[in-house]
Amino acid sequence: MPPLHRLVSTPRYADVVIHGDTAYWVEVADDTGLDARGQIGQVLAQIDATLATIGSDRTRLIQIVIHLADLADAATLDELWDAWVPRGHPPVRARVQSGLGGTCLVEMLVTAALTQP
Amino acid sequence: MPPLHRLVSTPRYADVVIHGDTAYWVEVADDTGLDARGQIGQVLAQIDATLATIGSDRTRLIQIVIHLADLADAATLDELWDAWVPRGHPPVRARVQSGLGGTCLVEMLVTAALTQP
Amino acid sequence: MPPLHRLVSTPRYADVVIHGDTAYWVEVADDTGLDARGQIGQVLAQIDATLATIGSDRTRLIQIVIHLADLADAATLDELWDAWVPRGHPPVRARVQSGLGGTCLVEMLVTAALTQP
Repeated sequence: MPPLHRLVSTPRYADVVIHGDTAYWVEVADDTGLDARGQIGQVLAQIDATLATIGSDRTRLIQIVIHLADLADAATLDELWDAWVPRGHPPVRARVQSGLGGTCLVEMLVTAALTQP
Repeated sequence: MPPLHRLVSTPRYADVVIHGDTAYWVEVADDTGLDARGQIGQVLAQIDATLATIGSDRTRLIQIVIHLADLADAATLDELWDAWVPRGHPPVRARVQSGLGGTCLVEMLVTAALTQP
Repeated sequence: MPPLHRLVSTPRYADVVIHGDTAYWVEVADDTGLDARGQIGQVLAQIDATLATIGSDRTRLIQIVIHLADLADAATLDELWDAWVPRGHPPVRARVQSGLGGTCLVEMLVTAALTQP
C-alpha cells in the first residue's frame, strides 16, 4: 500500500492529503473580503504555494475543478487562468457555478502529481 | 495494472469502485424523508458502513466533496462533521451548494485509501 | 513515480490527463446548440471516443460526476445513461445541478482506469 500523508492545521479538514504520488487539496482565498479578481488571483497563488510545499509544480497538475459563485466572473477567471496555466502542461479543468456561501466567490479542487524524483 | 473492483447492487451505478488501493463512492441518505440533520447523520453513518465493507476506516479518508441543497444547513453539517471526523486525520473537504432534486438535502463524494495490510 | 501524460489541443486545459493507469477528463457537448437529449447523447458518445483514444473502454470507468444545468433533464439523462452504461460494470455516479453558463446543459467529469494490458 502506498503511504498516506496529511498536512493538517485545523481539526475540520486537511490542507493537503497525499496518497502515493497523488496530492489532493481545496483552495479558497485566504481573504474572502477581496473582489472576484482578487480572490481568483489569491487562489492561484495559494495553489503555487501548496505545490511548492509538497515538492511539485504547475506542470504536474492533473485536474482542477473550479466552483464560481457567479458565472459573471468567468471572463476574469479565464484571463487570470490563461496567464497562470503552464503552456503545454495544462490540467484537466471543469468550471461550474455553485453556491459557496458568505463572501466566498471561488473554490478550486486540485489534484496534482508529485514531482518526478 | 492494479485491479479494478466494483460493488454493484443496481444497474445504474456502482456502490463503490476500488482501483488499486483507492476507493471511490457517493453517499446520499437512504431515507431522504429525513430533515437535514437526519440526512447528514445518516450519510456519515453510511460512510462508516462503506468503510467497514471495504476494509478501511475514517482515518484513511482522502477527500470528501459535500453538496448541500441549502447552505442554511451548513452549521448543522459542521456540528455533525466535527463530531465525526477523526482528530488528526481529517480528509480534504469541499462544501458547495448544488441542486440535488426531490427531497435530497446532502450528497457526499468520497475518496478513501484502503487500510494498510 | 508513475508517468504523467497529457492530451492537449488548447492552451487552457488538457483534453485528458493520464497519471499512472488513471485517466481524468471533462466532457461537454461539442455542439451546445443541441437540446438536452442531444447534448447528453453527444457527451456519452464523446466519452466513448475518449476511452478509445486512451485504450480503455466503458467497463473501466471509475467515476462520473454529472452536472446538469436543469434537473428537469434528469429523466432524459437516466434514459440515455441506462442504455449506455455497461451492465455489471457501472462507474460510481453523482448527479447534481450546477450553473454551466451559455447554452451548455450538461458537463461530465470522468475518471477511468486504463485497460489491462
